[in-house]
Amino acid sequence: MKITLSTLSRALASATLLNLACMGVLNAQQVSEAIKNQAAELREQALNSELAWDVLESLTTEVGPRLAGSPADAKAVAWGVAKFKELGFDKVWTEPVTIPVWRRIHEKAAIVAPFPQAVTVTALGSSVSTPKGGLMADIVHFASYEALLAAPAGSANGKIVYISNKMERHPSGRGYGKVGPGRFLGAAEAAKKGALGLIIRSVGTDSQRSPHTGMTNYQDGVVKIPAAALSNPDADQLDRILARQQKVTLKLDLLTETAAQTLSYNVIGEITGSERPQKIVAIGGHLDSWDLGTGAVDDGAGIAITVAAAKLIAEQQRPKRTIRVVMFAAEEIGVYGGKQYALDHHSELSNHIIGAESDGGAGSVLALSSNIGQQALPALDAMLALMAPLGIVRSDEVASGSADFGAMVEAGMPAVGLEQDHSEYFDIHHTPDDTLNKVHPEQLAQNVAAWAIFVKIAADWSGRFDR
Amino acid sequence: MKITLSTLSRALASATLLNLACMGVLNAQQVSEAIKNQAAELREQALNSELAWDVLESLTTEVGPRLAGSPADAKAVAWGVAKFKELGFDKVWTEPVTIPVWRRIHEKAAIVAPFPQAVTVTALGSSVSTPKGGLMADIVHFASYEALLAAPAGSANGKIVYISNKMERHPSGRGYGKVGPGRFLGAAEAAKKGALGLIIRSVGTDSQRSPHTGMTNYQDGVVKIPAAALSNPDADQLDRILARQQKVTLKLDLLTETAAQTLSYNVIGEITGSERPQKIVAIGGHLDSWDLGTGAVDDGAGIAITVAAAKLIAEQQRPKRTIRVVMFAAEEIGVYGGKQYALDHHSELSNHIIGAESDGGAGSVLALSSNIGQQALPALDAMLALMAPLGIVRSDEVASGSADFGAMVEAGMPAVGLEQDHSEYFDIHHTPDDTLNKVHPEQLAQNVAAWAIFVKIAADWSGRFDR
Repeated sequence: MKITLSTLSRALASATLLNLACMGVLNAQQVSEAIKNQAAELREQALNSELAWDVLESLTTEVGPRLAGSPADAKAVAWGVAKFKELGFDKVWTEPVTIPVWRRIHEKAAIVAPFPQAVTVTALGSSVSTPKGGLMADIVHFASYEALLAAPAGSANGKIVYISNKMERHPSGRGYGKVGPGRFLGAAEAAKKGALGLIIRSVGTDSQRSPHTGMTNYQDGVVKIPAAALSNPDADQLDRILARQQKVTLKLDLLTETAAQTLSYNVIGEITGSERPQKIVAIGGHLDSWDLGTGAVDDGAGIAITVAAAKLIAEQQRPKRTIRVVMFAAEEIGVYGGKQYALDHHSELSNHIIGAESDGGAGSVLALSSNIGQQALPALDAMLALMAPLGIVRSDEVASGSADFGAMVEAGMPAVGLEQDHSEYFDIHHTPDDTLNKVHPEQLAQNVAAWAIFVKIAADWSGRFDR
Repeated sequence: MKITLSTLSRALASATLLNLACMGVLNAQQVSEAIKNQAAELREQALNSELAWDVLESLTTEVGPRLAGSPADAKAVAWGVAKFKELGFDKVWTEPVTIPVWRRIHEKAAIVAPFPQAVTVTALGSSVSTPKGGLMADIVHFASYEALLAAPAGSANGKIVYISNKMERHPSGRGYGKVGPGRFLGAAEAAKKGALGLIIRSVGTDSQRSPHTGMTNYQDGVVKIPAAALSNPDADQLDRILARQQKVTLKLDLLTETAAQTLSYNVIGEITGSERPQKIVAIGGHLDSWDLGTGAVDDGAGIAITVAAAKLIAEQQRPKRTIRVVMFAAEEIGVYGGKQYALDHHSELSNHIIGAESDGGAGSVLALSSNIGQQALPALDAMLALMAPLGIVRSDEVASGSADFGAMVEAGMPAVGLEQDHSEYFDIHHTPDDTLNKVHPEQLAQNVAAWAIFVKIAADWSGRFDR
């Protein structure tokens, strides 16, 4: 070919375009059509798959409630190993997690005066027992945790503190953060004010006689007082009685037990990557549940969703990177499994190219949040475009990795968050009513579809998510 | 005045008209415009009145659960007397009712094998205790009470019978009659087949972890076996386990107590009639409740609705006949108050010109049924015309007087039935969740409006309701 000026100038122009395109590869590598097509196919398969439901039905029926450290927790670990193997995961193993052991033995309460009647309570997680035969004392009422904090020293001397504010219902679940401190910190603060016990209105949005448990955290050097949650209708009742401005006497009778530390296990299953097996897309949920319900939404759903998404991907084509599904131990009682995982896998932190936990129940995914580098936006955009038919939009929130991957994300692991509808989640969260019939199969399937899209692209896209 | 033929013939014609009119009075006496106008005014007042809510709030808060024969039952009787007096009823008195005493002390159950886990149960009313430490036995499953009846002799030998069919949701509440016999009669029939215990799926339409109690009736000469209801989610769980076709072993631990007979009381308040005080329009509800909830819908609502309707009428103008409001004793445990009332008031049966009980919860009135003579149809039509704006239509059902006026109606008392929407009633009926927050104030007010129309016309219309 004879080179003319015109030809040269065209060649130069092409080279410049090529060069720009190469820079584009580095800065904003696109997701290939092949991957997108596979992800779209997975989405449709997931919407029509009953796999997540079957996994969830199996866990909640055959294991049921599985409080960390209980005999059922050990059964759950065995179930997890067996389930991964049954589904053909390439590698399946467990990693020990040392955890404290606490259990409730009995719990009851009654208004003694002015209008004697039983009320429905549940001990908060880690609560100590009341004195044998129960604790009887007058109630001192605070409209919020903040009001308790602001109260003068000694203002609860010899009394049972009652914190009464009710959680707001909202798709984001934002009410949890607002009233949660009463549960997390109320016992310690009440004790500092001289209280003998704490009762709180359940941290929940329901109107049922199902009190919500959940951890309360004592403080070193502060006396541990018994702590329990009233169901919302019982808190309403107590509010009505207090509104009559009479002295209200309560009897609280909790028997709980703390035993020596024991072992639980993170249960891990992998689909080994075909091209970069040492690189890991890390997903999962927590295997433990509170003791009151069967942990269908918290967090059986998260286990079922992530296991099913990984399995559907593997059935389609072996992923290029490894998909690791972690069933975390002992989340409810203090994120023991998640913290241990971060310690155990510190050396392969940089191989965790991205991670996410499903621990928001079984409601539909509404939005995708992220915590990734700018160069990964094309991958995020591709995920969002494929998730749009599922009703999922971009969230500006920074993905935290949820409780169990929180330590990994803090250490630097990129993350996304598949943010679920929490409108109904806090109706049953941590209650006896966290049972399989509260899960809507079509919402569970929508979750699997969203997770399959995320995991497929994360595993096969050749770009990097690093922040 | 000179009498002519023409005059005479006019007089005869007038006499004939008068005669026909008189016959009309006997056969189909109309309700006067004055009464209708007053009833229409009462309807609007009732829709804007908070009186029923206030009565209900007072009963459920200040007394709370009030199982017949319990200390709270005595408090309820005192509350009823005080409430009638406070509202200015002309006569207030009590009538003793001898009742049996039963109470639950504790109740728990667990699946022992193949998948150990606690299940939520409540003892059925009158249930005996299990042996100390609990009854452990395999389950024999029947899809319905009818299937149990049809089973061969000895087919439940040494086992715990489980009846699993679920109540249908319907505005009429018709599902109750269909699955109810398993509760009413199941323990006796299971014992005849050799069973050591009975568990049933709760007779209820909800999906919550709130089991439904209610009486079970033993039979003379048949061994009394312990009987309990599983919540619906727990029955679902047991169904899933049984579907795996493994032997299922249950441990049932019930402690109940039967004491010597005691006295409760029908509490009666009257608005004395201005013209025919001996003639009575008899209304009411039952004052007792099950022990699990605060009896807001069953039957605090009935008490509140009928008390408020009578009070609103009295405030407008003294009724011509007497309005008697009866707060019946011990309905739940066997209609003791209603039966005693019929005995005590046999001599004034004919003075009970019509009666009705409100014992269908707090849902809106949908239809008006009746059990009256043909000649009273104009009064019924007037009621229906005035109730039409409340969305109430004619029902072809024969009014029974509900449980507590049943004996009076059987003896001949005319009756109407204000038939309520039962779509949600059996979600909480006989559960811990029968609490004030389940009552919709506007539906409660609609009830009072309907009752005020019925009672106003019944008290002031001069015709007869006799069948």
